[in-house]
Parts: sequence; structure tokens; C-alpha cells
Amino acid sequence: MKDIINIVKVGGGVVEDATSLARLLNQFASLEGRKVLVHGGGRLATSMAASLGIESRMVGGRRITDEKMLEVVTMVYGGLVNKRIVAGLQAKGVKAIGLTGADGDIIRSHKRPLKRVKMDDGTEQMVDFGFVGDVDKVDARLLSSLIESGNVPVVAPLTHDGEGNILNTNADTIASSVAQALAEYYEVTLTFCFEKAGVLRDANDEGSVIPLINEEQASRLIAEGIIAGGMIPKIENAFDALRKGVRQVVITHSDNIDGSRGTTIK
Amino acid sequence: MKDIINIVKVGGGVVEDATSLARLLNQFASLEGRKVLVHGGGRLATSMAASLGIESRMVGGRRITDEKMLEVVTMVYGGLVNKRIVAGLQAKGVKAIGLTGADGDIIRSHKRPLKRVKMDDGTEQMVDFGFVGDVDKVDARLLSSLIESGNVPVVAPLTHDGEGNILNTNADTIASSVAQALAEYYEVTLTFCFEKAGVLRDANDEGSVIPLINEEQASRLIAEGIIAGGMIPKIENAFDALRKGVRQVVITHSDNIDGSRGTTIK
Repeated sequence: MKDIINIVKVGGGVVEDATSLARLLNQFASLEGRKVLVHGGGRLATSMAASLGIESRMVGGRRITDEKMLEVVTMVYGGLVNKRIVAGLQAKGVKAIGLTGADGDIIRSHKRPLKRVKMDDGTEQMVDFGFVGDVDKVDARLLSSLIESGNVPVVAPLTHDGEGNILNTNADTIASSVAQALAEYYEVTLTFCFEKAGVLRDANDEGSVIPLINEEQASRLIAEGIIAGGMIPKIENAFDALRKGVRQVVITHSDNIDGSRGTTIK
Repeated sequence: MKDIINIVKVGGGVVEDATSLARLLNQFASLEGRKVLVHGGGRLATSMAASLGIESRMVGGRRITDEKMLEVVTMVYGGLVNKRIVAGLQAKGVKAIGLTGADGDIIRSHKRPLKRVKMDDGTEQMVDFGFVGDVDKVDARLLSSLIESGNVPVVAPLTHDGEGNILNTNADTIASSVAQALAEYYEVTLTFCFEKAGVLRDANDEGSVIPLINEEQASRLIAEGIIAGGMIPKIENAFDALRKGVRQVVITHSDNIDGSRGTTIK
């Protein structure tokens, strides 16, 4: 039987303030067994960009990454956020090792071609997202060898194209891709943490968490507009991971990284 | 007999512009056998800090690292510079893996206490360097295990104190400390690259490279003022490394990272 591993994805908001970062570090440190942390950092990148006089442009919830913004996300995700988490985990006895997709050639991607995107006003438009990478492959060998030596990978949402370019990649996608690749070696639980208690039936009621969603229900909930906006790609990432051998996906609040509450996708 | 390894230290200036970075990547990629790259990034940190409205303060050639500056160097050294080099090396088939001292607990340091420093005007002053780390120990096990699996560590000049704090650490010191720790496993050559051809007898004559310096000669050259300024700690680092088992130290130009020319310290 394969060993169990927990892949936990946390958003950038969690690492922004000292209190929520401390809580995350405590919770993640107390998670037993093999584990991987994947983090975002979007909000910190936006504020750092603003301090540098660089405007953040988003389309359909996704960042447009021009050359200047690529510098910012490389610094913020790969440097500031990643090293803050790594140093914080080390202080709790977790042998964290920070990685981007470029390190050890762990995650190879290609620059996203022009993409048709549905805009907020309902029209469709061809969008150039710039230096954004769509994942081609994850090399699980280095990851698993690090994990088997007791290390805990902390993965930043950056990949590379093998031609010398760092590319900005959505952290949910990174988490899902890493989970899929590690499914060859482990029984993987993938936990997406965010600011809500799970997938809510009523967006304004934190008590309305839907405990379990299968693919058929998901289609219906999307059609009914209950699953909408940024939750749609999260759910798609979740089913993608399940189809590729991940045992369980949980969508839950950042205060619950052990995935004991929230919405289970299966 | 132990295997040979090359530890190459390059300054931040080299990675600043595309041309010199490309040359570095080519030269380092063509270096045969086991190798480690240690990089600086000071000039880029200074310009990034300036863009953020943060003033860089230097005392005796060393940076004062307050909380804001620590954010900048964490971003610039650990993110921007490190990942740019790593992605660039990957494109040349080098399995580079970027690391700070916090990653895998590789380099532990302590915050430098107030230090008596000789100022430019000859007076002495107690200086608080802020979040600057003096190296306590290097864990060569993870490094050597990565190296033995074909990886090439690319080390940023950041360490951690084991209590959750990233600390800014001089890149020459990092290179020397890593070289000393790896001397247990390898025959180590340590090459310090900078903007001159080596230790010069006449600062204005690139042709006046002193090919070989031993400890006695170094003392004399320091007394004569021929070795001065930032070269003094470099030479001290070199002898420190030699005393701790490093086989050879070379001080040379960044165009010569194989250490075939320049000044050999022994």
C-alpha cells in the first residue's frame, strides 16, 4: 500500500499578515506525515507592484503578467512569500525546502497562447496573458526523493519553459499538477484552502457548506449559478486531479488545513 | 580519493545585465563535474530598494539591513536573481536548484551583535547591521545528496536563525562556509569571481595580477596597503577556507570562472 501524503494549497492572503501566517505555520507544522505546501501570493504581488508604480491588470480573475509584473511575481512568490514560509516552518522543526518549478526542473510549462476569455460584461475577447505558464509536466522524482529524506517541499506558483524563462502559474493549478504527479507514489489528499468554509450553497451563509460534491452535482451547481466565478476553475482542478489518481480533494477554510471540515470533492 | 567539486562565487553585478548573465550561464554550464554556484545581488537590491523609496545604507562596504531592506534582499536575492540564474541554467541542461540557507536548514546563522567597525575617516564606531546573519553551521548532507543526484545548487546569500527569521549574509562568506562544509565530502576548489583579473599589485593595472599568495605574503601585502578595502575580507575568507580543508582558492575575473587564471591563494 502506498504511503499517504497531504498537499495543502493556501492563498496569498494567508501569508500577508503576521497573525494568519503564524496560524498557518502552526497548523501545517502539526499536520502529521508526508506533506507539501503550495502557496499563492497574489495580493502581496499586487501591493508590491503598486509600490513600484506598476499597475496590476486582471482579466477573468487572472493576472496579466508583462515583463515588469513577471519580475514582481518572481520576487514576491519565489523570494518574499516562499522564504518567509520556509523560515517560519524551520522554526517549528519542519524541514521545509522552498521550490519553484524551475528548481530541479520540477515543473515545466509553456507560455500560454492567446486565449478566448469571457469578460465580466458577457462578451468574449482574445487575451494575451503575457508571461503565464500552462503546466506541461511535473517531475515527481526529485519531489518524492526530497520527501522521502524528510523534507517538506514549499512550492511557489512559478514554473519555467526550459528556455530560460520563468512563468507565472496559478497556484491552484500547481497544487493540482503536483498532486497528480505524486499520485504515482502516494495516496494523495489535496486540500485547497481559501477564505470561506467550503463550497457554499448560499454565498452569504458560512453555515451552508455543501459537504460532498460529485461530478454530476458539480455540473448542476454550476448550471444553477451556485458554483460561480473563481470557484469554477477550482472545482475543475479538483476533478482533474481525481481523474488522474488523487484520492481525495477538499475545499475548505485556511483555518482548517487538515481538511477535516469543508467540501469534499469526489 | 574524494571527487572534485567547484564552488564558484559570482557578484551581483554579473547577473544585472543580460549580456554578462548570458556569459556567466554559458561558462558555468560548461564547467565539468560537480559544482555549486553562489551569487550576490547587492547592486540589484540597491536599485530595487531605490525604486521602493528605501535608502541603502552601507558601513565599511557592508549593507545595513533594516526590516524593509530585509524584505528587499529576500525578494531580490532569493527570488529575482536566484530564479533568473536557475531558469537560465536549466535552459542549458544544468539541473540547477535554487536554495537559501533556510531551505532544508542548509545554513544556520545568528543575528550579528553590535560590531566595532573602522569607518572611512579612521574612527571606530559600534554598528548595528540589523538583520545580518553570521554563519554558525552549514549542513553539507542535503547539499551533497542533491549534488550526488546530479543537481547543481545555486545558493542565494540569505541564511536563517532557526527562529523564523531570514538573515542577510555576505555572499563571499556563504561561498567560503559552503566550501568548508563540503570539504568533508569532496576535494573543493573555491573560486571568487569579481570585476578584476585577480589580486592586483597595482589597482590600475589589470596586467599586475599576483599569481600566487600565501598567508605570510598576504600579511605583508595588507601591511603595504596593496591588499585593501573589500579585498581584505575576501582574502580572510580564502585562508579561512584553506585552513578548514578546502584544497584551493582562486580570486579571478567573472569571465574566468574555471579559475584557470587569476590569483591562487594557498
